[in-house]
Amino acid sequence: MTQQPPPPRLSLADRASLTSGAGDFVTTAIASAGVPAVTMSDGPHGLRLPKESGDGGQVDLHSAAPATCFPPAVALGSSWDPELARRVAGAIAAEAASHGVRVVLGPGINIKRSPLCGRNFEYFSEDPLLSAEMGGAMVRGLQEAGVGAALKHYAANNQETDRMRVSADVDERPLREIYLRAFERIVRRDRPWSVMASYNGVNGVPLCENTRLLTDVLRSEWGFDGIVMSDWGAVRDRVAALRAGLDLQMPGTGGRTDREVVAAVTGGDLDESVLDAAVERLVRFARRAADGAPERREVPVAEHHRLAGEAADRCVVLLKNDSDLLPLDPASGTVAVIGELARTPRYQGAGSSQVTPTLLDTPLDRLRELADGARVDFAAGYALPGAAPADGEEPLVAEAVRLASASDTVVLFLGLPAQDESEGFDRDHIDLPPVQLRLLERVREANPRVCVVLSNGGVVRTAPWHERVPALVEGWLLGQAGGGALARVLFGAVNPSGKLAETVPLRLEDSPSHLSFPGEEGRVRYGEGVFVGYRGYDARRCEVAFPFGHGLSYTTFAYSGMRVDRREDGAAFTVAVTVTNTGGRAGREVVQVYSGGPAASAVARPPRELRGFASVSLSPGESREVVVELAREDLAYYSEREGRWRVEEGDYRIDVGSSSRDIRLSAVLTVAGDPSRLRLSGRHTLAEWLRHPVGGPLLGERFARAAAGRTGPSAMDDPVMRRFLAGMPLDVISEFPQSPVSPEDVDELAAAVAAAADDDGRGE
Amino acid sequence: MTQQPPPPRLSLADRASLTSGAGDFVTTAIASAGVPAVTMSDGPHGLRLPKESGDGGQVDLHSAAPATCFPPAVALGSSWDPELARRVAGAIAAEAASHGVRVVLGPGINIKRSPLCGRNFEYFSEDPLLSAEMGGAMVRGLQEAGVGAALKHYAANNQETDRMRVSADVDERPLREIYLRAFERIVRRDRPWSVMASYNGVNGVPLCENTRLLTDVLRSEWGFDGIVMSDWGAVRDRVAALRAGLDLQMPGTGGRTDREVVAAVTGGDLDESVLDAAVERLVRFARRAADGAPERREVPVAEHHRLAGEAADRCVVLLKNDSDLLPLDPASGTVAVIGELARTPRYQGAGSSQVTPTLLDTPLDRLRELADGARVDFAAGYALPGAAPADGEEPLVAEAVRLASASDTVVLFLGLPAQDESEGFDRDHIDLPPVQLRLLERVREANPRVCVVLSNGGVVRTAPWHERVPALVEGWLLGQAGGGALARVLFGAVNPSGKLAETVPLRLEDSPSHLSFPGEEGRVRYGEGVFVGYRGYDARRCEVAFPFGHGLSYTTFAYSGMRVDRREDGAAFTVAVTVTNTGGRAGREVVQVYSGGPAASAVARPPRELRGFASVSLSPGESREVVVELAREDLAYYSEREGRWRVEEGDYRIDVGSSSRDIRLSAVLTVAGDPSRLRLSGRHTLAEWLRHPVGGPLLGERFARAAAGRTGPSAMDDPVMRRFLAGMPLDVISEFPQSPVSPEDVDELAAAVAAAADDDGRGE
Repeated sequence: MTQQPPPPRLSLADRASLTSGAGDFVTTAIASAGVPAVTMSDGPHGLRLPKESGDGGQVDLHSAAPATCFPPAVALGSSWDPELARRVAGAIAAEAASHGVRVVLGPGINIKRSPLCGRNFEYFSEDPLLSAEMGGAMVRGLQEAGVGAALKHYAANNQETDRMRVSADVDERPLREIYLRAFERIVRRDRPWSVMASYNGVNGVPLCENTRLLTDVLRSEWGFDGIVMSDWGAVRDRVAALRAGLDLQMPGTGGRTDREVVAAVTGGDLDESVLDAAVERLVRFARRAADGAPERREVPVAEHHRLAGEAADRCVVLLKNDSDLLPLDPASGTVAVIGELARTPRYQGAGSSQVTPTLLDTPLDRLRELADGARVDFAAGYALPGAAPADGEEPLVAEAVRLASASDTVVLFLGLPAQDESEGFDRDHIDLPPVQLRLLERVREANPRVCVVLSNGGVVRTAPWHERVPALVEGWLLGQAGGGALARVLFGAVNPSGKLAETVPLRLEDSPSHLSFPGEEGRVRYGEGVFVGYRGYDARRCEVAFPFGHGLSYTTFAYSGMRVDRREDGAAFTVAVTVTNTGGRAGREVVQVYSGGPAASAVARPPRELRGFASVSLSPGESREVVVELAREDLAYYSEREGRWRVEEGDYRIDVGSSSRDIRLSAVLTVAGDPSRLRLSGRHTLAEWLRHPVGGPLLGERFARAAAGRTGPSAMDDPVMRRFLAGMPLDVISEFPQSPVSPEDVDELAAAVAAAADDDGRGE
Repeated sequence: MTQQPPPPRLSLADRASLTSGAGDFVTTAIASAGVPAVTMSDGPHGLRLPKESGDGGQVDLHSAAPATCFPPAVALGSSWDPELARRVAGAIAAEAASHGVRVVLGPGINIKRSPLCGRNFEYFSEDPLLSAEMGGAMVRGLQEAGVGAALKHYAANNQETDRMRVSADVDERPLREIYLRAFERIVRRDRPWSVMASYNGVNGVPLCENTRLLTDVLRSEWGFDGIVMSDWGAVRDRVAALRAGLDLQMPGTGGRTDREVVAAVTGGDLDESVLDAAVERLVRFARRAADGAPERREVPVAEHHRLAGEAADRCVVLLKNDSDLLPLDPASGTVAVIGELARTPRYQGAGSSQVTPTLLDTPLDRLRELADGARVDFAAGYALPGAAPADGEEPLVAEAVRLASASDTVVLFLGLPAQDESEGFDRDHIDLPPVQLRLLERVREANPRVCVVLSNGGVVRTAPWHERVPALVEGWLLGQAGGGALARVLFGAVNPSGKLAETVPLRLEDSPSHLSFPGEEGRVRYGEGVFVGYRGYDARRCEVAFPFGHGLSYTTFAYSGMRVDRREDGAAFTVAVTVTNTGGRAGREVVQVYSGGPAASAVARPPRELRGFASVSLSPGESREVVVELAREDLAYYSEREGRWRVEEGDYRIDVGSSSRDIRLSAVLTVAGDPSRLRLSGRHTLAEWLRHPVGGPLLGERFARAAAGRTGPSAMDDPVMRRFLAGMPLDVISEFPQSPVSPEDVDELAAAVAAAADDDGRGE
């Protein structure tokens, strides 16, 4: 690529035209200059292909050509399997290539700040590390196959309510540690071709005009070398956007805003070099797309459907399985499948990610296939909205109750109707539809051997009814082959191994963002700071229905032999643990490594933060050592005061567990901290001075001298007074008439400490 | 005052000298110009008189001349009795006058944002209305007696941790609705002579340099005409402080910073008119103090002690009284008084408010006096810190257990040791000392008839043990005569009527500020927004130990006949309710009026907010109508977007209750809203347009026209798509190729709406 000749000098109008789309999903080509068009397509879990493919067509969310619908991110995230995500992305890339699509608009890696976000089904997790590992794997999977990723939605786009205007008001530390962290990790490691700037603002500045985030952080700090495109329709001020670092406005505006760019350059409002830098990036992007274009091959529909099913197998989360109700034994009697969602499955969410599937497995059909001759009967139990039964709810319920009574086991499909969750709006509660909850109670009374299977893109409340059913399967939205996966898990052909990528709270009100979601008057304050998801539930010691990382198996695993070692270069640690399959079936366990502390941190640390994970597949009785690497820098917090990541000295607790609340083994890791850049001054408190290796003794000396000259007791003799003074800056103390140090003394002491620090290169 | 001649023109140095103190507690006098010195004294609940009174002396928090120690604000707030606060303040004013003190440094009306704040004992409540009513009454009580108040600590000084540097980062709505609201009410209504600027900053700007808060809000908006003085040692940049509106630096710096002012004026850095405006205010303040000086009379020590006792009677809160354990009946057997705090009472907190009392009642002595011959035995049970018993804890516990077993009833005094709470530092937990909790369990096992009496300045955790004791009395810190008050309540000579001015949570982790208190790296984010105290517990439907407003009586009250009427001028409503004493003793009930709603509010409203209260004293069987006035403007929220208070149209729920969670009667109040100032534009969403009385029909017309020309279904036919589009700004929709309105149409429609609004004077 670096060998290619530079494009011939283009006219100002031509250059301006490159910085906006030529159509809804295609960039502007300038054939004379050898700049090809780049075709893009929506769809992180499958392509949303406009019917008249190729030229981009027009936005019509309901009319797309068929493509494989893989499990949406909500499900894929529960696999905790980056390699799987990479394979799925590779298959999506192959489908893209077969349609001439060069960039896929995904993955979406936004953090699930609230269970209410209408687009949570498109995102992986409430945790940035898990989001980064899954999203980064998709970027690799796409780009290894020669198709570009558009990492989205950058940044802090965590709600749909007022998404096109709202400012996410978020402090620097949570911004860095939670909301930017996955973007940073993926940009640095996986080098996506493009990043998509979101609709919202951050701290009052719309992303598309946010110089700090688009240029200072993304390019200067992280070294991003791709293009930044706008989310569709997000640009309000085209010239301001270019200036801030937004290369490409999407979709095109028929030349209207290109003319604004030309006028701004001509009128001196926009430095031409800003436009040229964007053009250079866009030309590089277009050539990269053209050069690396893979061969167009026919989509192997059946093979991709199988991969979608294999992926779905790993996404199902077994939340509860009392008295081993599951797996169902075809030999042990009749099964009642109840719930319209078993026949009319929900397998993806609505909006720009909606795929027209090539095939569709329904759970009911697949269950019947796997039943091995056992009787599987069906009752709808409820109607989905828009298909209200003429006779009302009761006949459906009565039929379901009759069937439940007459069957040995009930598999009850519940979930959110399609109109409850979509891009474009948030939910305002997390409850299942009342009609389904009423059905559940009636069915359960008729037959307590109930396994509930959930279909939902956003978390639903399972309390308190989950206590009254012996088995609960979280099926999320599993894509077009999810019906088969559910059947395999229910009948035990697949041993479930998914783990929750987000907490299931007891009540919506418990969620850490509850008091400040979704904001008001155009602003949303991220009031919970870094305490998002399990970080917040843990910090408030709040009971939950099912914790982050939770997921059962049909077998059991034991943990032993934990070791934490420092890698030789000091940049990482390895956490090793032996996992043994102690049950009777082959199964996969996701081993999770969390850190906590240090106790004396300068900031409020979440009790536990995911730092790494790995999965291991074991036959019954088999043991294997699992090793997870932990970067030293992952232990850092982001210091707003110092404007940098900072690893603190101290003892960190390393927890290894089967979930965030099922910690099996722990160890203490002593870490040497980064040198502090703080310099003591009169604004530092007495306590900070006394703690300081140089300033402490110097100040102590002055105190001793003053004490020698004093008659009567010192204020420091009284424990309350001592704490009272400890929190006071030395400059305030120095102004007390009785102070042992004068304002001049303080300046002198500070200079002495600075001199000593310059000598040995250390600060505080 | 307006009749007085202006002071002769002073030299620059003289004028500068007036803007800082002459000593620790005295302002600068310029006798030649007729500007007298003003002596001040610490102490919102009594005077902290430096031993060498008059000239201000030097700061020594431990050496003060005796003065009556009235109940600190934590207790007084629980009386919900502004008239009582006024009388207490009047007595403090009389003592001030007798010592030549012209300004008392109080009241402190900061909001209790967290139960951990070390200075909570100096503040009234977690609610701004209650704080304003109690604090305002104290301002009136002082100033009616000719002694000035210094309303403090302005503003958002809600913690002691890093108090001299920390920035309270608080959004405009909570700042206005919670943290400034009591200041605003008192400044506007009660016109304090002075306001004290706090140490901390707000949103990055130290209060003493905060032009917006000291000048724009305090003076320009609220019309404050007194002086602003600094908290002691709070000024870091004297010239910046003067420029921001800080009139008086306290204490003086021996002329050092006066010279900085002179240099700044001479060098042109400070506009001389800024200095002169401060001098004018200071001279007016000094003359007001000199002119209004009351006669110096001897302090009526015994009378003030009685008033302190009478006040304390109303501050005691009966939290729990199962099976009517209380009041104690002297005829029903022996009473074991257990707990060192019964003999060595805590009656105030540490720091600048600490008073050397004139007399001191201990609970044990007063209980014996009131026992009417019944036997009252004492065991210490535990030692207070600093007086650790030689033989360890067990002998004291064993003795207490023996006594408890041998007695009919146990009164167990528990509480926080003095070193646990003070100005200058915060607590890091809310538990009672473990030694006391162990004693409680042992005593309870020996004799379940236990009444626990608490002495504490900040809330302590009572869960889960409060479930296991039949009676619980919250005695707070009751001042020097509190021992008598406790005895009177316990024996029924006084029927308790105090109500909690702050929530007692089940756990510290439940407190709404928990995730962001006390901040880090010099900043504290007020992440819970307006959801402070009960507003937050209610919004999260969080169970509490004892709710805001709770307090039992030895009698019972019934509520009936609620009426809500609009006052004729429309500026207020009256809420009337009949209260009946349905029990067997005379008693006082505090009737609380809360509002909630409206349902369609533009902002997240707390479920319930205190809007008014009144108390009524009733004989057994007596009924009386209580009328509480509710200002219409109190229903407003502060619109950050519009920069003003805004009453929304809609149905408000008016709740009348005996506590915030014991609502007895409710009514709906329909209120006409303030006209909106919003003008529709392309940035308003489709939903906002369609809701608009003028814009809605206009846009509907365009849609109808477009539909007439269209073949095939519209996106608006699909319910999901309808919600998807509803949240989109019209300018974004107008850019869709299929949009029924073009960008030009949107501008045209907006202009039409604006024209219509100009015609009839209404906005949205």
